[in-house]
Amino acid sequence: MTITLNSPLDMHLHLRDGEMLKTVAPLSSHSFAGAIIMPNLVPPITSIEALLEYKSRILSSTCRDRFEPLMTLFFRDDYSYEFLKEAKKEISALKLYPSGITTNSEGGVSSMDIEGLRDVFEAMSELEIPLLVHGETNGFVMDREKEFVSVYEQFAKNFPRLKIVMEHITTKESAELLGRYENLYATITLHHLYITLDDVAGGLLRPHLFCKPIAKRAEDRDALLDLALSAHPKVMFGSDSAPHPIDKKESCGCAAGVFTAPIALQALASLFEKNDNLQNLQAFVSENAREIYGCEPLSKEVTLEKTPFLVPDSYGGVVPMFAGEELDWSIKSVS
Amino acid sequence: MTITLNSPLDMHLHLRDGEMLKTVAPLSSHSFAGAIIMPNLVPPITSIEALLEYKSRILSSTCRDRFEPLMTLFFRDDYSYEFLKEAKKEISALKLYPSGITTNSEGGVSSMDIEGLRDVFEAMSELEIPLLVHGETNGFVMDREKEFVSVYEQFAKNFPRLKIVMEHITTKESAELLGRYENLYATITLHHLYITLDDVAGGLLRPHLFCKPIAKRAEDRDALLDLALSAHPKVMFGSDSAPHPIDKKESCGCAAGVFTAPIALQALASLFEKNDNLQNLQAFVSENAREIYGCEPLSKEVTLEKTPFLVPDSYGGVVPMFAGEELDWSIKSVS
Repeated sequence: MTITLNSPLDMHLHLRDGEMLKTVAPLSSHSFAGAIIMPNLVPPITSIEALLEYKSRILSSTCRDRFEPLMTLFFRDDYSYEFLKEAKKEISALKLYPSGITTNSEGGVSSMDIEGLRDVFEAMSELEIPLLVHGETNGFVMDREKEFVSVYEQFAKNFPRLKIVMEHITTKESAELLGRYENLYATITLHHLYITLDDVAGGLLRPHLFCKPIAKRAEDRDALLDLALSAHPKVMFGSDSAPHPIDKKESCGCAAGVFTAPIALQALASLFEKNDNLQNLQAFVSENAREIYGCEPLSKEVTLEKTPFLVPDSYGGVVPMFAGEELDWSIKSVS
Repeated sequence: MTITLNSPLDMHLHLRDGEMLKTVAPLSSHSFAGAIIMPNLVPPITSIEALLEYKSRILSSTCRDRFEPLMTLFFRDDYSYEFLKEAKKEISALKLYPSGITTNSEGGVSSMDIEGLRDVFEAMSELEIPLLVHGETNGFVMDREKEFVSVYEQFAKNFPRLKIVMEHITTKESAELLGRYENLYATITLHHLYITLDDVAGGLLRPHLFCKPIAKRAEDRDALLDLALSAHPKVMFGSDSAPHPIDKKESCGCAAGVFTAPIALQALASLFEKNDNLQNLQAFVSENAREIYGCEPLSKEVTLEKTPFLVPDSYGGVVPMFAGEELDWSIKSVS
């Protein structure tokens, strides 16, 4: 059995910089036609100049493949209309982080007060720049996303022309929000379709499955599965693949992030096939994103076949999800 | 400022065996007069012979101190009355583990069905042997203890003469149970008085704070604090100090357990003093246990003083709680 995916897209990807960029970028560009690139470097990407330099470093790391990095700026509440109008030519979206909520988010927004954000949100609405949001409060770790629901509602109600993407949703409450506001969209990761907190901390503690937002309950995962497997038109695949060197994961303070880029399509095919929804995978990994972002990806055909794929223990010192385990599907060819 | 504790007792302690026993046992025997010793070795302690041999290994590891290991057997539902009558001379309690629920609990009880446990529970009631329970179901990791409440209620109702200790409680529901059944008691650890899941997984993931039961919410911790700081007469200190070598903690599958034995009294004094309850510490770490178990500990005076104590990074390769941090109180003398 095989399936051919046309121009798969990863709508939420961390490529980092320097040596790590060189290690991980080719693993994404091999099997994806494009990806939304997160701007949370140190320092974050907040100028067009820095963005273009970063894009060019990405392109030189992925030059062997047809791959388009869809660039984003790190949200700041003092961006002017003129700046955004200029930026619009180079970016696909702005990414908003509440301050301190995840890896390298220290320079993020410290208050979700609508009035402080109004000018930028109105400019983005006008310029049709999507807003990507890491939607967590700084409350109790299991409640952070649920507590952010009211912020999403405020955003969606007050800025009806602003396209808002709830990034890497992990709760049934976020899933339900999609139906309530026309201008709310979502990405879902691979790992949140597979795991719950039990997989992270129910037996032995598994640092390579530790991520932000943290994996939740079975009913939350099931709500995400319903959206993904049915390829709900407001939902896109975004891996949130987030590489850390092994010594930052297996340590006394383990960084958040699951590394899935090189195994994502294989694991998605396995999951969709097991649930008899293989026919919806194309929409989940590409069509929905094209529709939502209004973008036309580079052409790329990725053929997967139902042949066991033994996931490597590490890719250049970065441990992937399913390391050492076997997935049902493997990549047969890319053209 | 100083406080002198008379015969502090640790009513829930893991000493392991072999080299680890030799490393950690002296750290408990230095500052405690006695401790309830957990029987979950590999294989678990289920015979009087194995128990006496283990006790003698403990005593030779602690021979420089006045220290009494209060031995326990690993609960089995096929112990006979005659066996328990004989065992009673050597043991302080039986420890019941649901199968597979924590480190080395694989041989535990697989069903909490009262009928299957009746004979042993009746024999224990008759012989006045306390039942110590690791009270978790195999449900979702944050719900396991709460789901066990109905089991505790069944046990308490059906065996009113059986003294039941809910070990290392972590939830407000368990705290509330104490008031509802005369024959229910509890131990509380040091770490569950200090941390919530946010400390384990809210920022970086901290494997040295990963334990079973997992730390819960702030309202749960506060309910435990109320019990401990007021030295509720049905509550005893039990560290559940559980050493693992550093490579079993900082690894791709981190074992559950927080190592607190050598820093427990200092951290308890700091906590009780900060909350203006220093006068209740003696009851929490000794008197309540004597009353509940009806035991008379060896005499030992431990004087603590309010002088900073820099917690070592490691004790023989085992990382303690608060490693590298400073506690307000230190041990001044032991006599």
